[in-house]
Amino acid sequence: MQIAMIGGGAVGQALGAGLIRLGHQVVIGIRSPSEAELAKPRSQAKPLAEWSAATGGRVASMAEAAAGAEVVFNTSNGAGSLAALHLAGAENLAGKLLVDVANPLDFSQGFPPFLIREFSGPTSLGEQIQAAFPRARVVKAFNTVANAVMVDPALAGGPHDLFLAGNDAAAKAEVQEIARGFGWQTFVDLGDITGARASEAILPLWVRLFVTGGSPAFNLHVQRG
Amino acid sequence: MQIAMIGGGAVGQALGAGLIRLGHQVVIGIRSPSEAELAKPRSQAKPLAEWSAATGGRVASMAEAAAGAEVVFNTSNGAGSLAALHLAGAENLAGKLLVDVANPLDFSQGFPPFLIREFSGPTSLGEQIQAAFPRARVVKAFNTVANAVMVDPALAGGPHDLFLAGNDAAAKAEVQEIARGFGWQTFVDLGDITGARASEAILPLWVRLFVTGGSPAFNLHVQRG
Repeated sequence: MQIAMIGGGAVGQALGAGLIRLGHQVVIGIRSPSEAELAKPRSQAKPLAEWSAATGGRVASMAEAAAGAEVVFNTSNGAGSLAALHLAGAENLAGKLLVDVANPLDFSQGFPPFLIREFSGPTSLGEQIQAAFPRARVVKAFNTVANAVMVDPALAGGPHDLFLAGNDAAAKAEVQEIARGFGWQTFVDLGDITGARASEAILPLWVRLFVTGGSPAFNLHVQRG
Repeated sequence: MQIAMIGGGAVGQALGAGLIRLGHQVVIGIRSPSEAELAKPRSQAKPLAEWSAATGGRVASMAEAAAGAEVVFNTSNGAGSLAALHLAGAENLAGKLLVDVANPLDFSQGFPPFLIREFSGPTSLGEQIQAAFPRARVVKAFNTVANAVMVDPALAGGPHDLFLAGNDAAAKAEVQEIARGFGWQTFVDLGDITGARASEAILPLWVRLFVTGGSPAFNLHVQRG
């Protein structure tokens, strides 16, 4: 498949590389895909020129990446995701699976971050993205694990679960199929896109478990009686 | 041990009954322990007169319950926990293990609830209780599972974890010993009391899993690689 990553930081690079290994064509979309920009280190990640050389993936503008894609991943910073997706263009997202991987984290008071007020409580980033782009088929997924675990769930041992939320059952099934390619085996369907409130809410726990455990190689499993 | 439950709703009654089955003496503390009050149904629970008759536990004022206890459980409504613990009395909590089971849930916009703003984000109910009662040895625990699972973890199958946060390592060990009496086997230590931000943050996920799964007989397990 032709897949666009909106956002070229660590998440976009790791997920993009993983999707290329599965045989997909991946274009990372960034705001200004100039040669100078591609040579610069990205947020907690390598320069995109290096990523392209290592993976064979392309880099383009957000609009070009989204226009050419069948599936779009939102791998932008949560605080700027709505703006980034507007740059990608509503018409370029219409009818497409839009996998929202972003988390609305507020680092304004340092570490640890907490959830951005305007995207949490009785709302979530995922549902605000669905509301802003009503023709996209938004699925919140992959946002509750580290980049490395997204594309290699065996790193966290097993069993552990990928949480999904979205209004479109077929879209969620497509995400599960992609995830199975990475080795994901168990899924927790949180229902419609308001379930993004639940999976985004995990982030303070995720950060704490990362700090207390000293490794990002973990995930949650829902154990039912 | 002599144990006080501050709050006579469903959580206090279930945990109190469970502790009595383990051989402890339990007194539930409520605001106004009149005969009329004991005859009234409590929040999602039976009248306390029935609870007493069924378990042999006593009911008293919050201050009397706390004064006579070696260990105190905060089983009050999260929104009113600071007020309830002030009624219990700082002097009656000093030096004691205070197990904070409450969650700061905001039902003002109906169901599902979300975390109360003043007790979430870069703070938590657990750490505000520790700050308000600095001589109490506060441990946040049992707040991430249903009442029935608190005292009978086998209801959720296994393995699954009890999350603990607190500044006092010995106090956390005491909570683990009590929990082992109920059958708890695995514990996740979230560090000092600021770890309450992480375990309280689970609640939106808990509520969603309860709704989508149709049963409270579940819990989370942290799977590490």
